Order: sequence, then structure tokens, then C-alpha cells
Amino acid sequence: MFDWLVIGAGFAGSVLAERLARVRNERVLVVDRRNHVGGAAHDHYDEAGLLVHRYGPHVFHTDDRSIVDYLSQFTEWRPYEHRVLAQVDDRLVPFPINRTTINALYGLSLDDDEAVETFFRARAEPRAEIRTFEDLIVARVGRELYETFFRDQARKEWGLDPSALDPSVVARLPVRTNEDDRYFEDAFQCMPKHGYTRMFERMLDHPNIKIMLQTDYADVRRGISFKRMIFTGSIDEFFDRRFGRLPYRSLRFEHRTIDAPRFQPAAVIEHPQTEAHTRVIEYKHLTGQEHPKTTIAYEYPSAEGEPCRPIPTPENAALFKRYEQLARATPNVWFVGRLADYRSYEMDQVVARALAAFEKIDAALGTGPKRARAIMQAS
Amino acid sequence: MFDWLVIGAGFAGSVLAERLARVRNERVLVVDRRNHVGGAAHDHYDEAGLLVHRYGPHVFHTDDRSIVDYLSQFTEWRPYEHRVLAQVDDRLVPFPINRTTINALYGLSLDDDEAVETFFRARAEPRAEIRTFEDLIVARVGRELYETFFRDQARKEWGLDPSALDPSVVARLPVRTNEDDRYFEDAFQCMPKHGYTRMFERMLDHPNIKIMLQTDYADVRRGISFKRMIFTGSIDEFFDRRFGRLPYRSLRFEHRTIDAPRFQPAAVIEHPQTEAHTRVIEYKHLTGQEHPKTTIAYEYPSAEGEPCRPIPTPENAALFKRYEQLARATPNVWFVGRLADYRSYEMDQVVARALAAFEKIDAALGTGPKRARAIMQAS
Repeated sequence: MFDWLVIGAGFAGSVLAERLARVRNERVLVVDRRNHVGGAAHDHYDEAGLLVHRYGPHVFHTDDRSIVDYLSQFTEWRPYEHRVLAQVDDRLVPFPINRTTINALYGLSLDDDEAVETFFRARAEPRAEIRTFEDLIVARVGRELYETFFRDQARKEWGLDPSALDPSVVARLPVRTNEDDRYFEDAFQCMPKHGYTRMFERMLDHPNIKIMLQTDYADVRRGISFKRMIFTGSIDEFFDRRFGRLPYRSLRFEHRTIDAPRFQPAAVIEHPQTEAHTRVIEYKHLTGQEHPKTTIAYEYPSAEGEPCRPIPTPENAALFKRYEQLARATPNVWFVGRLADYRSYEMDQVVARALAAFEKIDAALGTGPKRARAIMQAS
Repeated sequence: MFDWLVIGAGFAGSVLAERLARVRNERVLVVDRRNHVGGAAHDHYDEAGLLVHRYGPHVFHTDDRSIVDYLSQFTEWRPYEHRVLAQVDDRLVPFPINRTTINALYGLSLDDDEAVETFFRARAEPRAEIRTFEDLIVARVGRELYETFFRDQARKEWGLDPSALDPSVVARLPVRTNEDDRYFEDAFQCMPKHGYTRMFERMLDHPNIKIMLQTDYADVRRGISFKRMIFTGSIDEFFDRRFGRLPYRSLRFEHRTIDAPRFQPAAVIEHPQTEAHTRVIEYKHLTGQEHPKTTIAYEYPSAEGEPCRPIPTPENAALFKRYEQLARATPNVWFVGRLADYRSYEMDQVVARALAAFEKIDAALGTGPKRARAIMQAS
């Protein structure tokens, strides 16, 4: 009945469904266990009418123009440069650490990159080998800044001390000597103008695409007929966890609507000194929405809940490899995305991953009769 | 695979899916050709972040407390009494016609019901038999008020002169001698506090219910296995229009967002004197949303488009009867709802219709093993 069964309506599944339906003219059934499309990037209007991200803030940024071009078929954009502050004692300072952060915390007035670099170097504790998250930070900025910004935050985030964590968990976090206070440095920093969900709806709006919600993979693996499958769920789930469960950290968000137009001066404020939550998010900064109220969220890391971040340990990598080998031996199923690849992709990375997967599939399957018809229709 | 295939995720389909899943503990697949649940009652946040009704204003009102009790499982309520004005020349007057309307239009100061009744009686043209919409109005309030408020509006609405229309098309419209300017007189007049779509999402949020969107009945009639069916689409479509198409009037809405917090003094203003649109709707009156902008809609009746209102002529009633006989002879399929019954139900009526259909089904099928389990779990 369907050419393709696509499990998961997040970025990986939706991009592949769109390409298969539009470019190859094939019939696609997209299935998601949630009651909406967009996966963890889904946004929605809450009970006060404020646009919020149910699964935590998603800030789009990329250096890859082709990803922007692809997504621009489905959305306009609203310029937004993400800025994050950290609360240290009673002070809000830029994060990642930059020149302003150092001057504010230490009552200094360092006025060029070199002075800040000298400041870091005087405190850095050189390590022969960077084996842990702790090594990485302490070797760069010293123990005091490590303890202020990273140690307790990481313990909350990962439930582990940074001395037991792979440095890759923070690899993307820069330390700056200038006054750049943007969280990301990418050339393109924008939000989908009318939200992520609207963008996904337009991506999936094609006569070849049917969408099935509130439906688990287990509900459709039998009973629905299809030729090939894209699986974007957790790879261990596909194989009934036969080697054990791939571990993820999860996040819990406590949303609160405040009866005031603004709550805090940035979209995200890190709270490295609190005991339970890691940060507070105020969505209006991201969305640009005008509204007499504002909705914020307290973010609590947790071991239980929806799978959010793969935990990068050598054991988990080895476990994933075993599943990956099974996947390679499974004909007519392609495994794509954050959960299937067990990797913490940024949004632009998962779009790139899905587009690359489509190119491979398209090359492997060649120009069937439907594909030929699609090419003729387009020309 | 499924106990029930439910075609249509509007009121009829969603209420039945909820009852079958929850009370009978049966597995239900709900299918809708749109990309959302809620049918024509669906509301959504538009690009400016304003909650609007995509398919025209839906104002909930009922005299049946049991319907309120049923729906209150899935929503809280916001009190809202619907009021409608009509623009006559450069004046806005209450509609339906009441004492204030008459005093304003005729520069009178009639101050009790009797005086207004006398006013109407002096103008009314008695008819031996009420056979048309025109008869109904002219016999009650006379030709001048008929022409001012009804004649041209009905021509736009139905594409027919009121002298060719069945009186049932306006049967619910009162003419009042007091100053009551509410559009409805029901004891319960409220809107779902967080919108219709949220109410439907909660109604359908059950592990026994799967939802398939962007999917036509024709896409699933073969290929999905199920035991029984609820069909809430157009009954002629189910039978491949073998006796011809059942005619509907349709509506087209032109939405506009205005850069001001308020556009007009009521949710709906009738425009009986304009050439194309019948009324202008401002949604914020219905939703109570606070927002610096406001979205309005111009309503244009049309012959083409989504089926909205059955056209009550004897020919159409006869055509429906032929389909209804086929339906009666179709085992394991129940036909329920506005389109399947070819009737202009109010929302509370279609909920009542669906709940009554469930009682019949439940009685007919009796206590199967799943139903027995559901009863045990509930006790």
C-alpha cells in the first residue's frame, strides 16, 4: 500500500518524507507516537496563548547555506541571535565566558583579547592529555571558573561529575577573549517566522504523504503494508533492546505563565549555583511574540523521561555499535536521526543528515517509473 | 487490526472514537482528510499569533446539561454570550431584530413588548400557508424589515431568492419584542476555554485511539483491516455518488490581521446591504484573547468549496433518502453527523447525536470481553 513507512515525524522523518514524496513521487506514511508533528522541535500555543517549545528551547543556527535554502521552502525567518546569561551570586554575566564576564566577575577592565588570554593562561592548569570534561575546562580557564560555571551544572545535567564525562559533551562551547556575547557564531541565526510546527506542517503537506499520530512503531510494524522503511526512533527499540537499553539523559520542563510582559533579560539564564534546575527559559525572546503575559520554563535534567541526549561514554558507544551492525544487516530499512544514530545533532545537522540519506537512497534505488514521472512533471 | 475505523475527526467522529475507546475498550483508528482534528470546529493560532476559527465562527450554546457534562471532561469553559449587530445604512443595530432595533431604525421609543408586537402586526402580511423563507418573515414582520435584513442576505447566502427557499433555513432565528440582544437563548453559553482544538486533542488522547491525517476514506477503505466503521463524511461520497451529488452551500473566509487591538464592537456584524460578503467576524470577542492586533474574517457564501450547509429543498431531501436506504442496508457501518445525516446540526446537536449513536451501538453489540474488562477496570 505504501512505498515508505517513516517512523518519527521530527526533522529526520519529515525531511525524508518530503523528499521521497516530492522528488521520487512515492507514497509515504509518517508515523509518530506523539499527537503532533515536529518531534522535539514542536512548538505550540499554551493555555495563555503564548508560543512555547514543549521540549525545551530550539534555536536554529547554521553555517550551511544549502540547509537554509532547503528549509526556506517551508518557512520565512525571523532574525534572532541567541544570547545567554549566567547568574553568579547576584550578578548576571554573559555565557559562554567572554571578556565582559571576566571583567564583571573580577572587577577588572581588561580591554583587549591579549589581556584576557593572559588572564586565562595564568589560571589554566595544563594537562598532558584531555580525557574528561573537567580536563578540558580546567586546562583552558583554570579551576575557579570551572567550578563557578561548569562543575555543578554538569553534575545536574549528566548526573555525573565532569571528571567522569567525555569532553565531547561540551565540545561546542567556546571560551572567548573578545566581547562577542552570542551563544552561536554561525553565519545564519534565525527562527522559523511562524514557528517550527507550521514549518513541519508545510513540509509534510503533500498528497503523497499520510500522517499517523498517537501511534507506536509496534502498532504498525505488522498490519500496514509498505515496501521500505525509514526508522528515526531509538535504534535499540527497533531491535527490541536485545543487547540492553541505550541510555539517554532526559529533561523535564516546568512551565509557568507570568502576568507581566517580561520576566528576564535573555531567552536563557543559566543557574550554575542552584540545586535542581539548570536554567530558566523565557520563550518570547525566541519567538518575538507580543503578549501582555510571558511563559517561562525551569529546566530540570533527569534520568527518566523522553530520550533527549545520548550519554557519550565508551560503553554506550560500544553498545550502539552492536545495534548499528544489526541495522546494517537489515534490508530495506534506513536508520536516520538523533535517536537512530545515537548522536546529539544540532537541528541543521540532522537536516543535513536526512538530505544526505535521501541522496544515497535515491542513487541506490535509481529512476523507477514513479521517479521518472516526477522528473517529467518537474521539467 | 482495528475494532473500528472512524472516518472524520470532527465532533461526530471524535465523540464516537472517545466512547468506543474508553467505554468499550476497543481499538479505534480515526481518519481525516485534513491535517488536523476538530473538523470544521478546528481553531488554530494564525501567523500573528491570534486564535481564529479557520472554518468560520463556532459559538457553543446548549440547553442540554448532559452535553455540557460530557464535554467538560475535556475542557474548561469561558462564559461568552454571542451578540450580533447588523449594519443598516450607517447604523449598527441589534440582530436578531428586537425592540432596540425597531426604535433605532424608526426613531421610535416603544417601551414595552406590546408596543413592539403592535408595530410588527401593523406591518405583517398574513399568509394562509408558510411555504417559503419569504412567507415566514413577511408574515411576521412585514415586507420592509424583510427586505432590509433578510432578502439580499439570503440571496447571497443561498444563491437563491427567499421565495424559493424552505422556511427551515431560518427556523432558529427569533424576532423579539423585548431588549434581549443575545443571539442565542440557551441556558449554557460558553466557549471552550483553551479552544476547540485543545478540547478535541484531549478527547482523542487515549491509548486505544490512533489518528491518521491528510488521509481520505478512499486511501484506507482497502489496506487497513477493521471490524466496523463509523462514517461521518458526506453520505453520497461513501456510495461513490451513484445517485448524484448531494448539494451543499459552502463558505469562503478572507482573513485579515489588523494592527489595532479592536476592529468592531461585536464578534459578528451582519452586512445585509453589501454585495458580496454577508458578515465580518472578529475572533477576539469569542476567544477573549488579549493581543495588540486583531484578526477578522470576511465571510463569502459560495457554491464551490468544502461542504458546509445542506440545502433544504424537497429534491435534496429525496436524494438523501435514497442514500439513507443504501446506508441502512450496509452492515457494520454507522452513518453519523452533519454530512452523513445531511443536516445542519448545531454543535450540541451533533454531540447528542453521536452519544445517542454510541448508546445504540453499545446496546446492539452488548458486553463483549473487552467491554467486560472496561467495566471491571472502572469499578
